[in-house]
Amino acid sequence: MNNTIKIGMFGLGKAGKEVAEQFLNDPAVKLCWIVRGSNTPLTEHLSEDIPVYISSELDLAKLIKDKPVDFIVDFSSADACLGYADILAAHKIGIISAVSAYQEHHLNCLREASKKTVVLYSPNITLGINFIIIAGKILRKLAPHAGVEVIEEHFHNKKEVSGTAIRIAELLGLDPKKHVNSIRVGGIVGRHEIIFGFPNQTLRLTHDSISRAAFGQGALYAIKNLYRRPEGFYTMEQLVSEGFSAALA
Amino acid sequence: MNNTIKIGMFGLGKAGKEVAEQFLNDPAVKLCWIVRGSNTPLTEHLSEDIPVYISSELDLAKLIKDKPVDFIVDFSSADACLGYADILAAHKIGIISAVSAYQEHHLNCLREASKKTVVLYSPNITLGINFIIIAGKILRKLAPHAGVEVIEEHFHNKKEVSGTAIRIAELLGLDPKKHVNSIRVGGIVGRHEIIFGFPNQTLRLTHDSISRAAFGQGALYAIKNLYRRPEGFYTMEQLVSEGFSAALA
Amino acid sequence: MNNTIKIGMFGLGKAGKEVAEQFLNDPAVKLCWIVRGSNTPLTEHLSEDIPVYISSELDLAKLIKDKPVDFIVDFSSADACLGYADILAAHKIGIISAVSAYQEHHLNCLREASKKTVVLYSPNITLGINFIIIAGKILRKLAPHAGVEVIEEHFHNKKEVSGTAIRIAELLGLDPKKHVNSIRVGGIVGRHEIIFGFPNQTLRLTHDSISRAAFGQGALYAIKNLYRRPEGFYTMEQLVSEGFSAALA
Amino acid sequence: MNNTIKIGMFGLGKAGKEVAEQFLNDPAVKLCWIVRGSNTPLTEHLSEDIPVYISSELDLAKLIKDKPVDFIVDFSSADACLGYADILAAHKIGIISAVSAYQEHHLNCLREASKKTVVLYSPNITLGINFIIIAGKILRKLAPHAGVEVIEEHFHNKKEVSGTAIRIAELLGLDPKKHVNSIRVGGIVGRHEIIFGFPNQTLRLTHDSISRAAFGQGALYAIKNLYRRPEGFYTMEQLVSEGFSAALA
Repeated sequence: MNNTIKIGMFGLGKAGKEVAEQFLNDPAVKLCWIVRGSNTPLTEHLSEDIPVYISSELDLAKLIKDKPVDFIVDFSSADACLGYADILAAHKIGIISAVSAYQEHHLNCLREASKKTVVLYSPNITLGINFIIIAGKILRKLAPHAGVEVIEEHFHNKKEVSGTAIRIAELLGLDPKKHVNSIRVGGIVGRHEIIFGFPNQTLRLTHDSISRAAFGQGALYAIKNLYRRPEGFYTMEQLVSEGFSAALA
Repeated sequence: MNNTIKIGMFGLGKAGKEVAEQFLNDPAVKLCWIVRGSNTPLTEHLSEDIPVYISSELDLAKLIKDKPVDFIVDFSSADACLGYADILAAHKIGIISAVSAYQEHHLNCLREASKKTVVLYSPNITLGINFIIIAGKILRKLAPHAGVEVIEEHFHNKKEVSGTAIRIAELLGLDPKKHVNSIRVGGIVGRHEIIFGFPNQTLRLTHDSISRAAFGQGALYAIKNLYRRPEGFYTMEQLVSEGFSAALA
Repeated sequence: MNNTIKIGMFGLGKAGKEVAEQFLNDPAVKLCWIVRGSNTPLTEHLSEDIPVYISSELDLAKLIKDKPVDFIVDFSSADACLGYADILAAHKIGIISAVSAYQEHHLNCLREASKKTVVLYSPNITLGINFIIIAGKILRKLAPHAGVEVIEEHFHNKKEVSGTAIRIAELLGLDPKKHVNSIRVGGIVGRHEIIFGFPNQTLRLTHDSISRAAFGQGALYAIKNLYRRPEGFYTMEQLVSEGFSAALA
Repeated sequence: MNNTIKIGMFGLGKAGKEVAEQFLNDPAVKLCWIVRGSNTPLTEHLSEDIPVYISSELDLAKLIKDKPVDFIVDFSSADACLGYADILAAHKIGIISAVSAYQEHHLNCLREASKKTVVLYSPNITLGINFIIIAGKILRKLAPHAGVEVIEEHFHNKKEVSGTAIRIAELLGLDPKKHVNSIRVGGIVGRHEIIFGFPNQTLRLTHDSISRAAFGQGALYAIKNLYRRPEGFYTMEQLVSEGFSAALA
């Protein structure tokens, strides 16, 4: 009778907190519990009603029996999936992961789980980034002779090249080492731009991040979209690409 | 045996000249003749091989018999179509028009012709502008709650609001009077930007014009795409939208 | 012996909190106390060491005797200055105000105080905005024939035209009603852009706000700059203009 | 009696032609003659009244006796100055050079000439670029802790890093190898951007080139500014810096 989608969360760092707040503000979903890694005291509570567990002390099987959910959303660290994938898959609980630092064995673990339940993984889960990826892929096909460059701007202390920019380049068929240009300066939250250069016109697809809450909106988009879908391994690009097709129909 | 597409042109003003040059540089098409309105001497010849006729002295029926073409491309003025539409339609010669100042009776004349031949009309025929229109329409469906604004920047002496910007707004379901923001300053050739505002991210689709030669590239895209298609009334947005669907398939 | 500049603050709203944090992080100053208007409980304490008073219960004369300061910084509301100006002026305590909603009688009150102490008032106290104002004023003199437009972009719920944009226009000798272009969309924190259009080149001076902490940095710039200066009415533009002159010398 | 400033030009390539046209349109100056390097026929004459000479056949001493000028403007190639510097210096004819490929011996030749006449050399002579250089230098002094990056965007076929961008970086005290970011794509005429990154705000000084005619406007600014000034070696940055000081006074 009740179509509210129930969610559990892994991770309560900076991104996790802002994502959780988005869940609390959307009546279509219910955030049932949060698992965090650290056992330092919480300085501020998101909500008195949301129980928070420490992962090292957790009996996950018992938790999902006591407080069942439809999806878990993971904004914690790479290794978390190794602990939860089997258990969640066995109970057909969907997994939405936006952890950016996965190695091959983490991805294999998620792929294994996707044989039994819905799994979505994308290192950048925002609607905006995935929109410019799909739009960019289409333009590559419409105008194969146009030059393409990716520019990413971030705060000074972000040392590595943006993983999102690398993925954009790869999905556009470009060598990231040659075509990703990284600007590091001041406190820029995050800007990604794809430039398509024609002899007589220039096209720019630009995404500016304002806050990490955009990840929460992306997770909500994924959850609503994947609710009651068959098991399998999904990506955000795939969902947005499906959205393009539906919009064109 | 020869698949070169033969083209005749109406109009040899600033845009017409740059468009004609694009045709001369593309081996897939052959520019066969040009009709111009003025009988003032030409200061420079595009090419000694391309005959140029004055419209007031022209017998168009004889010209297309002597020098048959597959398409005509019109960058002249609104009334030109009233003179050529019937004759070209009767001979199944395609009509590509990028004249921006049409009134209803001009459009009716082209629609009538489209019952017998291929007719494409768009006030802005560049690939880039039509790409951001289709991408923008899709994003409106994916994210109906996002705010949308259109900004257009042009040189100081362009007095009226950009027709392209108005069309962008209308196709996105926005009231142009409220959502088109016009900047007039200096010698800016032409910039159109669609901003999608989300609470936590901002997306910009930006098109910068470098020169009018982009119209020629757009016309070439249309001609190659419409070659051997059935009669009917087409728009550039429609062709680009079809390109989106094909790219996604 | 101790050159640490002592500061008191009025206002502990969103801006006030971020400004206060900047003060806590700069060893050149010491935040001694904060006066706030509301008596609702504080959900989080900035620092246990900083006493916070409710303005309606405050004896300001006693406070500055017990806990003397060199400057007060005001991020509260327009009427606050009516209560503190006389007392502070009599004790030669500097006043830095960044309240944006002043009416004429508030400004008169501050001007009166400036006969006895240092007073700085600017509706936008960031270094960045005042930098583009002064640079823009200079370019107006170097290139009087260039066209100039101001664009300001802010979040959807900001209903009025940006006061900062209006001030930029006025200081550049432009009618704000004609030359300020306001874009309202999504969650944009704040962007101000001055465009100078020449026939063959375009110059853009663009300021993007990331967070309100920029106001704190601006207040610190003002305080250090005005420390031990003679009484008088100062503006942030004036200090930045002096900085230009010093840099050029 | 006549204050029209008389000009001779070296160079009639793409830049030279657009510069010469600017001179023809400004009643404050008179373009008296042009020297070009190539002896291929001219496809179009700038003006029937302006004599054009081939440099290899030229007797410069005779020319400046027959048709005296106040300044020569050089948009030709690096070696040209080796031929004209002595002769012009002896006759106190001002030299404005915007040749970008000078080596040390070329500069020495111009410096020697500057002992006897006015010499101005800048690889980029536009008002806009020099404006952002001086504004940027000032901001470096006002905010020494801000991060700074230079981005330059140009057409795909421009193989080398922009000399203008390198000079911007050097004048701002930055290592060009680390802080100049070059984007090459499509037909972008030329964009230079200096980004100043603060923790809580970002400032961008952006220059877009529309056409090479901007060089002509820069040359005119230099000529009018240097007319009747004492001999010496000047740069465009210096003149613009003087303009800043005058505007602030």
